[in-house]
Parts: sequence; structure tokens; C-alpha cells
Amino acid sequence: MLTTRGAMSLAIEEARKGLGFVAPNPPVGCVVLDAHGELLAKGFHRVFGGDHAEIDALKQIKEESLLKGATMYVTLEPCAHEGKTPSCAKRLASLPLAKVVYGVCDPNPLVSGKGAHIIKHAGIQVEEIAAASDDVTDIKNELEELAEVFLWTHREKKTFVALKVATSLDGQMAHVSGESKWITGEEARLYAHFLRANYDATLIGKETFLRDDPGLDVRHPQFIGHKNKIIILDTSGETLARLEKSNIKKAHSPQDVYVAVAKTVSISANEFQIIKCDTDANGKIDLRSLLEVAYANKISSILVEGGARVLSSFLQEGLAQRFYQFIAPKIIGAKSGLSYTREFSISNLPERRELRNTKLSRLGTDLLVTGRLD
Amino acid sequence: MLTTRGAMSLAIEEARKGLGFVAPNPPVGCVVLDAHGELLAKGFHRVFGGDHAEIDALKQIKEESLLKGATMYVTLEPCAHEGKTPSCAKRLASLPLAKVVYGVCDPNPLVSGKGAHIIKHAGIQVEEIAAASDDVTDIKNELEELAEVFLWTHREKKTFVALKVATSLDGQMAHVSGESKWITGEEARLYAHFLRANYDATLIGKETFLRDDPGLDVRHPQFIGHKNKIIILDTSGETLARLEKSNIKKAHSPQDVYVAVAKTVSISANEFQIIKCDTDANGKIDLRSLLEVAYANKISSILVEGGARVLSSFLQEGLAQRFYQFIAPKIIGAKSGLSYTREFSISNLPERRELRNTKLSRLGTDLLVTGRLD
Repeated sequence: MLTTRGAMSLAIEEARKGLGFVAPNPPVGCVVLDAHGELLAKGFHRVFGGDHAEIDALKQIKEESLLKGATMYVTLEPCAHEGKTPSCAKRLASLPLAKVVYGVCDPNPLVSGKGAHIIKHAGIQVEEIAAASDDVTDIKNELEELAEVFLWTHREKKTFVALKVATSLDGQMAHVSGESKWITGEEARLYAHFLRANYDATLIGKETFLRDDPGLDVRHPQFIGHKNKIIILDTSGETLARLEKSNIKKAHSPQDVYVAVAKTVSISANEFQIIKCDTDANGKIDLRSLLEVAYANKISSILVEGGARVLSSFLQEGLAQRFYQFIAPKIIGAKSGLSYTREFSISNLPERRELRNTKLSRLGTDLLVTGRLD
Repeated sequence: MLTTRGAMSLAIEEARKGLGFVAPNPPVGCVVLDAHGELLAKGFHRVFGGDHAEIDALKQIKEESLLKGATMYVTLEPCAHEGKTPSCAKRLASLPLAKVVYGVCDPNPLVSGKGAHIIKHAGIQVEEIAAASDDVTDIKNELEELAEVFLWTHREKKTFVALKVATSLDGQMAHVSGESKWITGEEARLYAHFLRANYDATLIGKETFLRDDPGLDVRHPQFIGHKNKIIILDTSGETLARLEKSNIKKAHSPQDVYVAVAKTVSISANEFQIIKCDTDANGKIDLRSLLEVAYANKISSILVEGGARVLSSFLQEGLAQRFYQFIAPKIIGAKSGLSYTREFSISNLPERRELRNTKLSRLGTDLLVTGRLD
């Protein structure tokens, strides 16, 4: 027999299987317990445009009569509107379920509260998990984190930004010589590719492009053929001449490659996407302006991969929501290294950036620290 | 029924209870299983001068006849010589044990192999764990780590050095203003006091002394009244004038406070311990010379707590065996921070320092990364 907590944890686990495949939808998981609390079915939203988690789970149930007195746990409020797929709430309302417990209220004004209303109207008990069970703060945090990009973009109407950096224990990304290959090991690098699949776009600065000529594609066995967008910050547009023969071009269609330039720069005809942004007092691209243009271009989430100047700017401006730091158990020396925060400063200690809901994992001999930055 | 692996793990757990209380002896744990593999007794070396682990365990056994066919697991080879306590090997030889499995061969030439020989001579089977069980690499690592200070000092005839630093995610110990209070949280700070109890002496540089006036005593509920020695690196001896009214003086007897000065400096009479060291090309105290003098003064292990210059020097010279980094999930900015490696440099990436057998733990919201540096 599963408890509310156990069932929702299982639904979260299911939802995670969809990570990287379902954007701009959120990952969603679903678990169905029979009247005795035994597992009847579980399911998840597998791919954008495909079945929602509730439907995926219901497909495993051979006879509707098995649902008599059953409880469905779903990580997000069942949808009320007909989008790519029919309304889940209506489908659930037609079933002999006793109860539906959902994790997070849908932030989409088209759906929020309406799904719950449709189900309740059919005589099925509906509860948000916070009301259904005591002490679920940790589960609530997990549920929010699972769908954080979706929740943020719908609540804030802004692009979600994650920063990613791989460093030594002393916070160095590379040796002063520029040498940075393989600071972290294979498992960390594979996970970094998984992360790329989880964000619409990967962003780098001009210097990183010119120095490293990175491919920035998703090289991960689960995501073969996955297409991520690329954004290069380049005030003057000087990277365009080099883009044609770059590894980015080899790995991406030109319509997925965005070059962010200053509004005042005139760019001759080319096959890439040019996004024109305001500049700040230093003549650099204003990141707020960039994010507005990105949002207007339906880029819901960005993974910022460097270099140090770009990472520092996002930290300085407080424009990032999530932070990932891979840490290799190595020491490079600040005197001979490149720190990812070398352009970031605070005027006193209380101004420091602080991660919330920090998570820690081991990837081979490396560590991954991640948390919310806002 | 316990396996060899299970019994030795339990013995390691027992041994750890003695950490901080037994130096210069190593922590040792012991587990006794009866002829059927059931737990008969466990024990550990509780305090320097007190019973060895084997004797501590045997005291729990009411009748010697219970030991018929029993196996004893002990983390270190039973001692052969009569020191503060009678020889354990002789005691074991007098018992009806079937077998003794030990973790690590004693590195002390007075004992090495002799303990095993005495027991074997009495007709009891004796094995080092590597021979007794397959795939115990992890257990062997744990056993070596448990007694690493003891093993190092006896094998190398040198003082064991551990470096300890508390930083932000970007490797900063403090804000440029010097502000560093409470970068890490309470649990990390408590653990740092536990570490102090585990090393004979705590070492700091002159700058840290003059700026922070730290007490450097062990403030930990398990170690009330614990006396650690203090070493201050101070080429010219200028700290002496300030020591009299310092927090170090308040918390320590003068005979436990060592000031390491250059050989050429003449120091007027005072109540502290003056240790005279060679200087390097830059006129700074030569750390090799310091460690030799420390070893001659029976200081077997040193915990280096800072500042950045001292930590960097130990890293640069490759003179540290263990490294502890507490990492708070905060970002201070290299531009406005003090990096603990700001005086450490390598000429290329392969020269980086690398931790072996890295361990990771969570202390509140902070992380602790530790590993061997040599």
C-alpha cells in the first residue's frame, strides 16, 4: 500500500523520464492506486504532442471498472483545455475515480483551477497535495523544481536562465593558458549534455566561440538527433564571418543559431538568426533586453555555458534562476587559473548570491552542486 | 551472521569512536564473532594509555570458553610489544580463538609482523584482510584512511599535514574587506572543531593571527578540555609582542604555543615555544624545515587553517597529505573575494593537484569535500 507521499514521489520519478523531451510542456507523471492503495498504473508525458501523463497511465488499465474507488496522483493539475490533446480533466471526470490528488496548480491562466473544477463537478474529490497530506514541504519543492521552467515562464512571462560551469575545487574553469579540456570526467560531461537537452537554447559569449569553436550540440545516447538552439552574444556581429565554418554550423541548422548583436550594428544578409538588443553603459549587450527578445522568439529556457565574462554578467545582474556547478576534486590555483567569477563582485558579504534547495550528486569522481539562484 | 566484510566494517565504525582521543596511537576497532559468525563483542581503543581495542572487546566476554572457535577482526595488526599496556598478541595467543583477521599490518618496526607471528605460533589462524576476502579494496582504503596519520608518521618519519579551508562555490575564503564570518554554517563549523581535535597542532600564518586574533581551541562537546598545540608561522617573530594578550593565549598554555621564526632572528626571553627554521629564497620560513622541527618536537600531525598565503605555500610545495574543503552554496565573486589559492600556480593543467579517495558529505546546507593530496 502506498501513502500519498509515496505515490506522489513515484509520480515525480515517472515525470522525470520525460525530461528533455516534452518542452515547452512541463514533465508530468501520474500514478493510480486502487481503492486499497495498491498500484494500478503509472505513466508520464513522454514527448511533446503525445499523451499527457494521465492518459499514458490510463492506457495501462484494461477495464474502467478497476478504477472504481481509485485515487489518481498527478504532479500537475490536470489540463482543462483542448490543446494538442483532448482535455485530461474531462476524461478523468468520465471515470469512476474516487479522488484526484495533484502536485502543483497549473500556472497557465487557460487551465489554472479549471481542471480541478471540472473533476470536482463530476463528483470526484480533488485536492492539491499540500492539503492532502501533512509535511510535504520536500515533495512540494520537488514538484516545483520538476516543472520549474514551465512554472517560471508562465508565472513571470520571462525566459528561464540556468548557468552551468565546470570547475576545480578552487573555482577555476581553466588554466590561464586557456587549457580547460577535461577538468571534469566523463560522467559529468555526459550529464552536461543531458542538461543541454533540458533547455531550449545554449548560450555562450563571443570569446568562448572564437577561442574554443565548440559544437554545443547534445551528445547523449538518450537524445540522438535532439535539436537545441544556440545563442552567441556578440555586440559587433564579428563572429558571423567565422560561423560559416564553425563546429556550431556543422552541428546545427542556421535557423537554430542566434547571434545577439547591438541594435545599432548593421548586419549584411546571412543565413543565421540575428537578434538585435539594447546595449548597456559599457556598450555590451544588455542582458535584460536579450532575454526579452529571446522570450519573444519563444525561447523559454537558456543554459548559459560561458565564458567567465558572460557567467559573471548573469550573476552580477541577478538574471539567472538556476545554477549548476560541476566540481572536479582538483586544485588549479587562482594565480594560474581562470575563475568563472573573475568579473563578478559584491560590495560586502551579505550581498553574496546564495543557492536555495541545493542538491548534491556525485558523477564519477566529480560533484555536481545545483540549486535555485533567485 | 556477519561476513568478513561486514565484521571489518563494524570494527572500523568502532575504531572511529576513538578519533581525537588516542593520538599518537592510531584509532583501532575490534569485533569478535563466535564459531557461527554471530556477534560476541566489539570494542575500540578509547583513550591514549587505555586498553587497546582487542582488550576492550574481550572485557565484554564473560567466559573464555565462549571464544572457542571464534574469529576476531581488528583494524590493525595486534601489538607484539609491551608499551603502555601489555602485548595484545600474547593475550590473544592464550585464548581458544580459531582465527584473527587484521586490517593493516603495523608499520611500527617494533611490531610489524611480530604480532601476527606470536598468534600464529599459538596455533591460531592469522590473516590480513586482503588475503581473507575478495574485493575489499574499499575496506582497505577505509582501514588505511582510519589510521593514516599513524601509518604516515611511522612509514615516512615525517609530520602528517592536512589543509582545511572554508569557501564559497567559487573558492573564495572571504570578501576583500577581510569579512569572512560565517561563510559556512553551524554544522560545518562544529565539524571543523572536531577536525582540530584530530590533529596534534593547528597552524596559521602571521597575517591570520594579526587580522583575526583567533582562539584556535577545540570547541566541541565531545572534546571539552582537549588541548591542541598551536603553530604560528612568523619569520621575524613580530607576533610575540601581541601573543600575550591574544585569544590564543587565553585558550592555550604557553608551552603549547609554538612560534616558528627564521633561524637568524634573535628572540628575547618569553614564555612561548620558539622553533627556529631555515628560510627559503624569498626569506620566508622553509616549510620542509618547519616540518622537520615539528617532527623532532613530537608533533605528528598538523591541521593548516590558513590564511591563503600559507595554504597556497603548502600546496605549491606539495607538502600536504590531506585536504578538507567546506563549501557553502554561495557565490562571492573572485573580483571581490580572497581565493585560498591566490598564491598557488601551476604552469600547465597536468600539474594540478588532485585528490585521491575523495569523500563527500553534507553538513547542513554546506558540503565537505575531503581526500588525500599526495
